[in-house]
Order: sequence, then structure tokens, then C-alpha cells
Amino acid sequence: MSAAEGVTPIGLPDGRIRVIVEDVTPAIDGGRFPIKRVLGDRVEVEAACFADGHDVVACALLWRQAGNDTWRHAPMAALGNDRWRAAFTVDALGRWQYTVCAWVDPFLSWRHDFARRVDADDVRLAARSGAALIAEAAGRVAEGSDGALLATWADELRAAVDADADTAELKRIGLDEARSLIARRHPDLRHAWTYPARLEVTVERERARYSTWYEFFPRSAAGDTSRHGTFADCEAWLPYVQKMGFDVLYFPPIHPIGRSRRKGPNNTLDAGPADVGSPWAIGAAEGGHDAILGELGTLADFERLLARAAEHGIEIALDIAFQCAPDHPWVKEHPAWFRKRADGSIQYAENPPKKYQDIYPFDFESDDWRALWQALLGVMELWARRGVRIFRVDNPHTKAFPFWEWAIARLHAQHPDLIFLSEAFTRPRVMHRLAKIGFSQSYTYFTWRNTKRELTEYFTELSRGEGREYFRPNVWPNTPDILPLGLQHGGRPAFMARVTLAATLAPSYGIYGPAFELLEHLPLREGGEEYLHSEKYEIRAWDRDRADSLADYIGVLNRARREHPALQRFDAPVFLAVDNDQLLAYCRSTADGSDVIVCVVNLDPQYTQSGWVEMDLAALGLEPDQPYQMHDLLSDAHWLWHGSRNFVSLDPQASPAHVMHLRAHRSRENDFDYFL
Amino acid sequence: MSAAEGVTPIGLPDGRIRVIVEDVTPAIDGGRFPIKRVLGDRVEVEAACFADGHDVVACALLWRQAGNDTWRHAPMAALGNDRWRAAFTVDALGRWQYTVCAWVDPFLSWRHDFARRVDADDVRLAARSGAALIAEAAGRVAEGSDGALLATWADELRAAVDADADTAELKRIGLDEARSLIARRHPDLRHAWTYPARLEVTVERERARYSTWYEFFPRSAAGDTSRHGTFADCEAWLPYVQKMGFDVLYFPPIHPIGRSRRKGPNNTLDAGPADVGSPWAIGAAEGGHDAILGELGTLADFERLLARAAEHGIEIALDIAFQCAPDHPWVKEHPAWFRKRADGSIQYAENPPKKYQDIYPFDFESDDWRALWQALLGVMELWARRGVRIFRVDNPHTKAFPFWEWAIARLHAQHPDLIFLSEAFTRPRVMHRLAKIGFSQSYTYFTWRNTKRELTEYFTELSRGEGREYFRPNVWPNTPDILPLGLQHGGRPAFMARVTLAATLAPSYGIYGPAFELLEHLPLREGGEEYLHSEKYEIRAWDRDRADSLADYIGVLNRARREHPALQRFDAPVFLAVDNDQLLAYCRSTADGSDVIVCVVNLDPQYTQSGWVEMDLAALGLEPDQPYQMHDLLSDAHWLWHGSRNFVSLDPQASPAHVMHLRAHRSRENDFDYFL
Repeated sequence: MSAAEGVTPIGLPDGRIRVIVEDVTPAIDGGRFPIKRVLGDRVEVEAACFADGHDVVACALLWRQAGNDTWRHAPMAALGNDRWRAAFTVDALGRWQYTVCAWVDPFLSWRHDFARRVDADDVRLAARSGAALIAEAAGRVAEGSDGALLATWADELRAAVDADADTAELKRIGLDEARSLIARRHPDLRHAWTYPARLEVTVERERARYSTWYEFFPRSAAGDTSRHGTFADCEAWLPYVQKMGFDVLYFPPIHPIGRSRRKGPNNTLDAGPADVGSPWAIGAAEGGHDAILGELGTLADFERLLARAAEHGIEIALDIAFQCAPDHPWVKEHPAWFRKRADGSIQYAENPPKKYQDIYPFDFESDDWRALWQALLGVMELWARRGVRIFRVDNPHTKAFPFWEWAIARLHAQHPDLIFLSEAFTRPRVMHRLAKIGFSQSYTYFTWRNTKRELTEYFTELSRGEGREYFRPNVWPNTPDILPLGLQHGGRPAFMARVTLAATLAPSYGIYGPAFELLEHLPLREGGEEYLHSEKYEIRAWDRDRADSLADYIGVLNRARREHPALQRFDAPVFLAVDNDQLLAYCRSTADGSDVIVCVVNLDPQYTQSGWVEMDLAALGLEPDQPYQMHDLLSDAHWLWHGSRNFVSLDPQASPAHVMHLRAHRSRENDFDYFL
Repeated sequence: MSAAEGVTPIGLPDGRIRVIVEDVTPAIDGGRFPIKRVLGDRVEVEAACFADGHDVVACALLWRQAGNDTWRHAPMAALGNDRWRAAFTVDALGRWQYTVCAWVDPFLSWRHDFARRVDADDVRLAARSGAALIAEAAGRVAEGSDGALLATWADELRAAVDADADTAELKRIGLDEARSLIARRHPDLRHAWTYPARLEVTVERERARYSTWYEFFPRSAAGDTSRHGTFADCEAWLPYVQKMGFDVLYFPPIHPIGRSRRKGPNNTLDAGPADVGSPWAIGAAEGGHDAILGELGTLADFERLLARAAEHGIEIALDIAFQCAPDHPWVKEHPAWFRKRADGSIQYAENPPKKYQDIYPFDFESDDWRALWQALLGVMELWARRGVRIFRVDNPHTKAFPFWEWAIARLHAQHPDLIFLSEAFTRPRVMHRLAKIGFSQSYTYFTWRNTKRELTEYFTELSRGEGREYFRPNVWPNTPDILPLGLQHGGRPAFMARVTLAATLAPSYGIYGPAFELLEHLPLREGGEEYLHSEKYEIRAWDRDRADSLADYIGVLNRARREHPALQRFDAPVFLAVDNDQLLAYCRSTADGSDVIVCVVNLDPQYTQSGWVEMDLAALGLEPDQPYQMHDLLSDAHWLWHGSRNFVSLDPQASPAHVMHLRAHRSRENDFDYFL
């Protein structure tokens, strides 16, 4: 039997490798996709490591930045039942890799047995074996003082055997704790095995996880329906957006808008010459995805706006909508990138019997797909070079998944600080695939989750399901396409409740404003979700000084988010029992328990709802009879709660929610130090 | 951009492939290990298949016997949410493979849209596109009449367009159901994608799943402690074993037994010259694992016994215990296969401070591992050539896992009808790994699971956990090493309850007899689990005609197993609520519901226990107020039950269990046809 023949079925280079490593987690689809983290996060890795028989197994977590030849390593700690754990911290953007190496450890096996030996002859023989193992360990030391120390130890043990030292003395020397720890650092790795998968982590900046979005149509920045807004007008909005506490200002497409088959106000088919059209109908004679709509300004204006926004702590996010208006230059230049109908005309977007004749989708089955992929990548590269660092991608689920995986990987390789938000409202598998292949954040079904049960189930799934390792929700109460029924009929309390839920259930959320804070609630058609006089098709003038504006309320919410780390992470919310189905209560806290926020939201926009909220005192480290302070960050009210059941009553006309910071005495002290 | 550069990150040969296949199940550790089935089983495969956009996706299950170049295939049916399912039947022993192929289907996409089109011009244009797609399908037909049929259809549709046929007529022709089904059979697979993993199934014979084991020491076959039993004596036991309904007769090792450091009766260290020693101390001057203990007979005797057993429907299973007595020939011939102590002597088995000086384990880290692996494989090959088809492997978890994976694969390649039972009582990960790497069946923790909660949790885990695809439990109420405390103190009712549980909770079980049916219950030491006067160290004489023997009871149990397919499969038992913690009730049924067995076992060996058993009538297809007959296969009693709650009372002195066959009227008929 040749070696190759002998080991083929098991894929091992050497039959003497007895150790098994399996079930290394986290791993998405067996390592096919990376997990996601942000700068400074810990990656906690577990694995099952074991071998036949009773020998002692040891294992190490290995990790490195992708492209680095050298692994860093740390010993893994046993959790019981052959499961092991260790963690590392990611302190640079980009791809990281991790895996697990394990081995049967002769020195640790010897030590385990030696401690248990009773018979004097056995102890003497075993001491001699141990001295040999320690001398071997000494021989493996490449540099530093460990080698000399171990060699001395081996000599000492051997000399004690030769001198007929008694069992107690041999054990005292052989089981020396301090020197054993040093010997462990130099294990015999001849028969070690490294798990073959190089599992990956994509490390992004913190805003990929914690971000607060404001969607805004620059066309309406002038405050006058008769004048097209400009980037210069947008500058005047920055203090307003900053005051509300948003850190991402997202614009619909800013490119030239097609004239052929342009849509008129309220999505009509007969646009007049003054109608501005939909910004998503991208491309006209003056340019396509690389150009800027003349009415908005110049590239220089745009770049100045980026700089001004940065001064306000705000990043501008651009919309990436890969589709063309009929007069986009590419339609003539690259006819191969579009499907043809039987009469030779270009296939417009449709979902029979619906037709979208102002939009030509790309054909990802084009024979010229390489050039198409490169051109689309080029668009994103161009705007990245111009300073944009956040892309909100329009309907990514109607473009081929392999394209996105390839493009995002290439973009991240050049610009690891880029953030991609997937705007896919579609089936769960599709949304998850997009997150797996690289999108930093994803739109969610939050927009249509209204009841206590729906919200509880959905956020439990998002935060505890497998997706927690790669699917970062970004939740929106409204978008220019979606005015949910709840906002149409619930009045100001419904707007307040929905934005409070969004801001406190997920570390990333956004609103489409000023429609949101100005309570815009009229639909184009009763029963539908389209806005009447949607900014998608016309310029609006917004009165942001209106007395009923929610701008101040949103400002308070976003300040709470900024000041409380518990609201910035996606550690699972813990839903609290309340004896009223209209009250949703949940606790968000940091992993170390140093920041605890309890939210109670009245989901009924009409009536006052009251109930008893049940707190898990033990989980919070509170004594059963201990009082604790609840500080409502929205109203600035303070209450002293105690025990596990406390009463809450919320009048939606006043405020439909409490967002309370919990402050408590230290459990075991009698002073008034707060633990926070 | 080169093609290679463009597709490297996504591993696709062609960017036009838009379809995604993921999460194909069943798959053990991402396909690293095969699932298990027996001859004639169905393998139900699911996958998530989807693509971007709204085009219609289709997919097929592919399967073949390993080594066959050609895949068989069947369309998969949509389950909703992008999940698909299909099944195939395995009708030959050995390895099979399966995977999933999916594609965006232009014809089905066209058909979906065509049905929804309204505008007459659109319909006409689309009809022309459809005719082209149908003509393309015709062109893909290699043989048979489909090609001509499709070409005719394409012509017909094109001619109707040319003749200005109206929308209704074009739709009538274009949406023709029968011809569409034919077009589907010839899809455009240019952009199809096949899931890269070739998932595997190991197909074994039915006995790998459903088997009934009787462990027996041939040394005691003479019925006389002064005379060593022989294979010829064993022949006389065959009718007895057959009458009890066992189909596997398993012998402890039958090889020469070491003389050096031989163990005496009751595991003492000072064996006298007449003491027979432990059969697991394998090897003496006259031979090792390839030889037969002279006192048992010759190879010819053994082969005759195999043949006689076969006439009784019984297979002989041999014990594979890879370890050596100090006088095993290999100890001198292959010193490199054993570890040395510091004084140069061979390391005996030990678990300090315990020592097993009559046993030398093999060193799987030996530099001569290739020869060792080959020699051990050779032992199993030899006995397989001699006609043995079932091996019970002793402590496989103290030999290297890679060895077993390699050896079982090679043995199965030559003899796909071989069955391997893993005797590993150890940690769960280790037991599961052995099952994954090829063992057909596994010992379990059943021996120590006694309470209602323990049994319910354990059998739920076994039958519903991931292991259900590869871990086939073989449950034993006792073994020569384990006389559980419950049997020491529970008397005959405990023996009856435990064997009833074993026989009805799992499709494979075994007992060590005649110790079991003769109620052997004295331990070597109080509080321990070793038998007093264990047959491991001495010859016993058994009076199998004793009036209190459970032989007849076991015969009835095993007949119930033979006559009821519900007891032969490992479809999960459904545990039934009973308002008494000493009563365990469960329902076993075939997948199609044609055979239903309800068991109720009194776990208390002392007192009569009564309670109300709750039946899930809807799951059984019974009306709420319908009577149904329960036929106790143990006592032959019949009861008429009705409704979901029925009373049961079990006196352990009479019989601690009911094993009831459920017979019921068809729900929707008024006659007395039973559905069984």
C-alpha cells in the first residue's frame, strides 16, 4: 500500500494525525461567505476538537488579515463536551481569516497521567519519560529564555530519578505549575491538524453597523416648487439634518434624467416640458451614471457639498440604480447590454401586464457581460474616487448576484471603508443572499410589521437567526415608494411610535424626510402605498418650521442613540412580557450590562394603553426588592421602579413611548454609587 | 479584464449564470460525510434555488451510483419561498451521489409572462418570441418524437401571428398545456448551474437498520461449567435463539486468549491453569486475530456454524477488538506497533491509577502506521472472506478515527453488505464522529436512561436531531460489562420493561443472554455494574428451561417487531402525554400511516400505575368521537378506545407494558373495513 493510496479517502497527509476538528463556528454556508464585523469588534470562535482514546487534546485559534502569510494564534479554552472557544479582535478594515489548529499533546497527556500515578515504580518510569518530553520541548524553543529554563527542568527531573528521589519529590518537580505553563507554549505539533477552511470576516467601519439615515430629494432643497433645488441649496439643509441627529444624508440618483417617455406628476404618462421626471430614469443626451443633472449643479458643487456635510458630521450616500432611461448614452453605445423584443426594439422593464416603458433593464445574460460588469463597476469606482463612501443600491435583487459579489469584493479591496445598503424588498432567501455576497446593510420587512407579535417575531429572527452574522438590518418607517397604511391613518402618534420603534429596535434606521417629520400621509390612491404628489415625479416645497413637525422629537431619539451604546449594537433585544397586546416592551443592553435601555411603545395610535411590564431582575443583576431608577430619555421624567412588575400607561396623544435608561444601586453595596 | 480575473471571486465559469443553488439537504457537515439509507429507501432532497429578478427558475435533482458517469434526474417541485424538493430511491448497495442543478428557464419565463399579457400588440410580439423559443427547444431534442411535435407547434404559433390571429387564439395556441409539458422536458441549460458538492449516501442492507441481536458466549454453550463450549455446541442453541426471534447472534472474540497475565474469575489477577481468561485478551502462541481458539473448534466448525445459523435465519456477528494480549504473535513480530515505556517494556493499557496489564493497545502514532493499518484491515478482510458479514467493533473510539474511515470504505467497496456496530460508550461528539465515518450502527446511552423524561429527551434527540441521517442507534438493556442498577434491584418487571422499551423504541436492539432472559442480577460489587461470575472470565452453565425465563416474552416482542413495519424504521416516536410520570407512552407508525403501534410502559417495577393516555386523533386520521380497537400484541387482549383520552393501568407483576396495534374504521365510511 502506498501512502497516497492509504490516505486518499480521508484526505490526510499522515495517518498518525489522530485529532479531529469539526463544526467551527461562526461559518456561513460552511465558510462559503464571510461573517461581518466592524472595527474593534471581537470575533468569538468555537470548534469541536477531540481525538480517540484518553490522550489530552489542545487547540489554538489562528487568525490573520487576508494576504498576510503569518497567522496569529491563541490557545482555546475547553467548554466541556469537546467544545472549545477563543476570540480575537479585528483592528483593521478589510478581510480577515480564521481557522483552528488542534493536536494530541504528549506533554499534557503525560502530565495528566503523572498526577494520577500511585505506584512508586510507575512514577519513577513516568518521571523519566516526562524528562524526555520536557527536553524535547526545550529543543523546540527557537529564541528567548524558555529553552534554557525547560532544559534545566528536564535535567532536574532526570537527576531526581537517578538519585532515587521518592514519589512525592518526583511529583513535586514533575508537576511544577509555572514551568508546565512554559512547556505548553512549545507543543509538539508534528501530528497537529489545521481545519482546512479559511473562514473569513469582512471588517467594516462602525457606520456599517450603527448609522442614522435621512433620505432627501435635492430637487426640493430650494423650498419653492417653481425652482429646482441645487447642491448649494442642500448646504442650507445641513444644520437641520445635523440637529435631528442624522449622520447619513442619502440622495436619490443625481444623474441626468431621461426625456423620452418621462413620467409626469403622480406617475402619469404625459409629462409636460417643465416636469422633472423620476430620478431613477437615469441617462439623457448629456450623460449617464457618471454625470450630474445640470439643474443640481456641477461636480465641483457636489464635491463642496460633500465637504460641507462632513463638517456637520454627515456623509452623503448616493443611489446606485443600474438601469437606463431610453436616452441613456449606453443604449446606443452598447446595444448588446439590453434584451431585444421580437421586433428588434429594446425590452423595457415590465411585469405583465404592468409596463415601465421609461426604464430599460440591463441583460445580465448578455454575451457582452464582461464589458457590462466592468462598466457598472466603473460607475461605483468613479463616485468612490469622487469621495462618496456610502451607496444605497436600488433593487439589487433584479441584477445578477454573481455581479454584486464580484463588484463589492473589488470595491472593498480598493476602498475598505465603502458601505453598501441593499434596497431589496423581496423574498427572504434573496435578501439573505445579497447580504451574504457583500452588502453591508439591508432593508427589511419592518415597514410592514405592526403588531406586537409581528415585531417580536421579526426582530427575534433578525437578531438570533443565522443571519445575525451577516444580515445587518436598516429599518425604515417610510420610503418615497412606501407610505404604509399605518401612517396614512394613525396621525402624529403613529409617526412617533414608528420612528421610536425604528430608532430603538435596530442600530441602523432611516426616514424619508421631510415627508416623515412633516407627517405627510395622503396616498395617491386609497388602499395603495404611493404618496400623493410624490417627490419622485415633482418638486415639493417643505415648511420645516411647522409647529407639528417631529424634527425635535427625532432629535431627542437620535441623541439617545448617540449617548447609549446599548442602542448602537445589534445584540438581541429582549422582549418583556406586558399584560396588554398594544404595549410592546423590550430591553436593549450592552454585552457587559453597563448600559441598559428599556423601551415601552404604545402601538395603538388612538387610545391610552396601560399595563404591567415584567422585568427580568436576575438578568439585570438586580435584587428582587431593590428600587431602581428609570429615566425617560424622551420626556426627561424619572420614576423609581422596584420589583419585577411595574405599571406603565401611555397616552398616544402626549407621547406613545418611553425610552428609559435604567440606573440602579450596585446590588451588594449600600451606597448610592450607580453602576453606570 | 480577463474572464479568469472577472470570475475568480465567485468561482463561476461564466458571468451569465444567474441562478443560485444553496442549502441542499440532507448534507452532513457540508457533504464531508455521507448520509445513510438501506436498500429500497427513498432519499428526499431539498434545495433553495432562485435567481435575480422575476424570471422563472427550474431545477432538477441529479443522482447516480458512485462510479457511474451518468446522472439520472427528476424535476424538483416548488415548496414555496424558493425551496424545492424531489426524491429518488436507492436500489443497490454501496455509495450513491446526489446534487441539484438549476437554471433560469427562458421558455417557462416566457410562458408565465405570456399568460398575463393584455395588450394585443404585446401578445403578438410575445407570440413570435415564444415560437422562437419553442423552435429552439425542438432543436435540442436528440431523439424520439418530441422534436417533430415541438417544431410543428412553433410553426403553428408563428403562422397564427403571420395570419393576424387575435389575442385569444394566440394565447390558446401558445399556452397549450400538453405541449408545454413536452417543451419543459428540453430546457435551455446553457446557463444552468450544478451545486458543486457531490453529496453521498451509503446504502446498506435492511439489517443495518432493523436488526435484533443476541450476544452469547460460545464458551458456555456446553451447559456444563467443567467443559468448554464449542461451535458444535452452539449449533444446538440456534433453535432457541431463533424461537426468541433474534436474527443476529453475536460472539465475543473467538481467538486464542493470552496466557501471560491472564485474568481469573471475577476479574482477579491470579488465574489458575484451568481458568479460561477474557476473550478480549487476544492472541497467544497459537495465533492472533486470524486464528480460532482451539477449545471452540476449527475453522471448518466455525464455517459449518455460519451455515447452520443461516438456515435458522440468523447471522453470526464477530467481535473486532483491536488490542493484543502480551503473547500475541504481533508483539514480537511488530514491536513498532506498540508504545514503549521509559524502561523499554511495552506500554500496557492504563488509565492511571488503573492498569490493564493483560492488554497492549496499538500505537496509532507508530512510524510503521501504514503496515499496522493494513494488518488490521487484513483481519476484517479475512473474516469477511470466511463469510462473516457483521462486525461488532470493540471500543472503536480508542483507535484513530482516520483508520476506521479508511478501513470501512475499503471493506464496503469489496463487500457492501458488511455491517459495523460501534461499541463506543463515550462522549456524544466521539460517538457521532464514528457514525459519520462509516459505522452502520452505534451503541447508545439507552442503558442508563431510565426515567420518562430521560427516555423522552434521548429518543427525541436520536430521532429528530441531525444524527438521524447517519447515527443508527442499537439499544441494549445489558451487556457483559454493564448490569445496570435498575436490573439489579427491579426484579422480573424491570427486565420486562427494559426489553420492551428496547424492542419498541428503536429498530435495532440487543440483549446479552442468557443472562438477560434468566434475570441475572447479582453484581460483583454493590454499587458497581459488573456481573458477579461474569462470563468474561469463566464458563457458565445456563438453565434455559427455567420457569421464570423471559424467553417466551421476548419471542412475542420480536414477533411484534417482525410483523409490524412501524417498529422496523426509525421514524421518530411520538411521545404521548400521560398524567402519570411512571407511565411512558409513545406511538410508532409508518410514514404512510398504514401501521400504527402504541406502547405504554410502566417504569415502576413495584407498583401498579394508572393514567390517561392522550392520543392525537387528527394526526392518526381519526374522528373525535370514533371508536378504535387497540390490540395488545403482548397479552392478545383487545380494547375499544374512543376519544383522545383513554385509561391505562399496568400491574408490573403481571405485565409492565402494552404494545398495541391500532385498528380503526375508515373515517369517512360506515362499514367495518379496517384501514390496516
